Amino acid sequence: MGKRIGFQTVELSSKPKILQSYTIVGPKEGEGPLREYFHEILSDDMCDCKSFELAESKIHYKAVTSCIKSAGKKEADINYIFAGDLLNQIMASTFMARDLEIPFIGLYGACSTFTEAMTMAAMAIEAEFASYTIASTSSHFSSAERQFRLPLEMGSQRAPSSQWTVTGAAALLIGREGNYPYITHVTTGKVKDYGVKDPNEMGAAMAPAAVDTLKQHFQDTNRTEKDYDLIVSGDLGKVGKAITIELLKEYGYNIESNYIDCGDEIFHGESQGTNCGGSGAACSAAVMSSMIYKGLLSKKYKRVLLISTGALLSSTSSLQGQSIPGIAHAVAVECGGD
Amino acid sequence: MGKRIGFQTVELSSKPKILQSYTIVGPKEGEGPLREYFHEILSDDMCDCKSFELAESKIHYKAVTSCIKSAGKKEADINYIFAGDLLNQIMASTFMARDLEIPFIGLYGACSTFTEAMTMAAMAIEAEFASYTIASTSSHFSSAERQFRLPLEMGSQRAPSSQWTVTGAAALLIGREGNYPYITHVTTGKVKDYGVKDPNEMGAAMAPAAVDTLKQHFQDTNRTEKDYDLIVSGDLGKVGKAITIELLKEYGYNIESNYIDCGDEIFHGESQGTNCGGSGAACSAAVMSSMIYKGLLSKKYKRVLLISTGALLSSTSSLQGQSIPGIAHAVAVECGGD
Repeated sequence: MGKRIGFQTVELSSKPKILQSYTIVGPKEGEGPLREYFHEILSDDMCDCKSFELAESKIHYKAVTSCIKSAGKKEADINYIFAGDLLNQIMASTFMARDLEIPFIGLYGACSTFTEAMTMAAMAIEAEFASYTIASTSSHFSSAERQFRLPLEMGSQRAPSSQWTVTGAAALLIGREGNYPYITHVTTGKVKDYGVKDPNEMGAAMAPAAVDTLKQHFQDTNRTEKDYDLIVSGDLGKVGKAITIELLKEYGYNIESNYIDCGDEIFHGESQGTNCGGSGAACSAAVMSSMIYKGLLSKKYKRVLLISTGALLSSTSSLQGQSIPGIAHAVAVECGGD
Repeated sequence: MGKRIGFQTVELSSKPKILQSYTIVGPKEGEGPLREYFHEILSDDMCDCKSFELAESKIHYKAVTSCIKSAGKKEADINYIFAGDLLNQIMASTFMARDLEIPFIGLYGACSTFTEAMTMAAMAIEAEFASYTIASTSSHFSSAERQFRLPLEMGSQRAPSSQWTVTGAAALLIGREGNYPYITHVTTGKVKDYGVKDPNEMGAAMAPAAVDTLKQHFQDTNRTEKDYDLIVSGDLGKVGKAITIELLKEYGYNIESNYIDCGDEIFHGESQGTNCGGSGAACSAAVMSSMIYKGLLSKKYKRVLLISTGALLSSTSSLQGQSIPGIAHAVAVECGGD
């Protein structure tokens, strides 16, 4: 039975297993450095749909159902799906779920939603409220641009510090049996706001939240950065990553040698024109569910700390001159088996 | 330790207690039939803020902090806050949480968010992941109207079947000690879509989800409508309430004599011009946290089933001609003590 250790962390003693992952990404992501790890690369990010939003929902549905099928399970085996996305009223997730017969818990944590979903999905397994759960998220470059910034048709110039919303969806199927990678700890973040107001500076807005949760995770677990093969942040991008490294040094943690950022990994920044890197609810989801999960399966990684980060802005809050609160949730995963 | 009974229900054997509730509503709600039950009635629904959205966030913050204080607890005693609202990117909840030092789980389930939050908050207590949790939601008539329908300044005429979004916020503090009302079962809903496309027909869009979850709750628990003093739906309004009663008869359940709808209860429909009744994430939250909770405390009600219902539309999905998926989550609460 799981127990709370420290202020923000729960230790999951039953070690909920990640039995299966599934990742679908868009054509641009499929040309990036992680190409070989994705389960499916779309040739057309519209997926025969009439809108970007419906395309995102279709991709999300496909990731979830393919994950269930790949694990040899059926929809009826899944007790809960914990899902979210960036769209207003999480339209991609709710429209995905209307075609499933699975109890649905809708989440919103911006780009931190994936570890939020992993946390809830793992807790439900740990507490034996469920036999199998799904954690899933999606995002789509085109639906996000027109919702948060400007319609693509306007051809606006992108700021140097801007990030590129990942088109894709990913799902993990969590249960309790087998020699699979397992979740040992979840550290749930607080909302932190340090006054950054520029929606093109999301890395800077999210970095203090990442630092706060990482520091708290280390304190709660009596671990340090050295206990992890890899510390993986969600989508801080180049700017946010650099800030996080520097701020953590002030607390005595030096993560430079074993730290990557999903936003920084998913694109060839220079040649793909993605500026500071990828972002979006699918960013850390796609990297975790492909490269990281496969690395845990192959025991290339023994112990990974994934910390997805969210910039909690809306176009309403930005237009009203509000700053951007950030949040970050951490999940510690170990490779299973012998 | 909680256990899953049936497909969608978990029985919470530790009986997580609702130690405290707190409800704040706007002036119009304060003139309604439930006036005497609310903890606080605003004289001005702008709360000295510059926008409706910031006012909603401020009300939400006040409900949460007042709930904690009224229970004689401190912020640091609360391990998780599960919160959501109707705004894009749940702005009211995230901006509320930036002023709190409490780990935050953002939820979105439209007007079903309150029972979604109660479910997660009770499960965290049941599993001993937390000592105390908060479940809270908010909504605001003016922020909802301009986001989902039209700006108030346009003075649009309201459809006869339309509902009036409740201005308010409510919070419950859940823990494990004392002789308080306690949560015995949670039944998590699936997303159901029966093709209703008119955003003024939310009651009709949500009724099939309510029926599905109620039927499943009765089957999973081996209970019937007769096992409850009161069955309380979220905000189906007059139209959705009538549909729900009729549809449930087809499954052999007659809830006519012990069934109320929060949307139907909160306003004097005729004299207050609220047409089909109240709605919004604060609707079932405000009724549960005031009249129902106080009725459980005084043992007027022995066993209540609250089923908040959500219409999962966004202005994007409506403009794209999509139908409105619905969802409903049920929570069974009993009066505690001797």
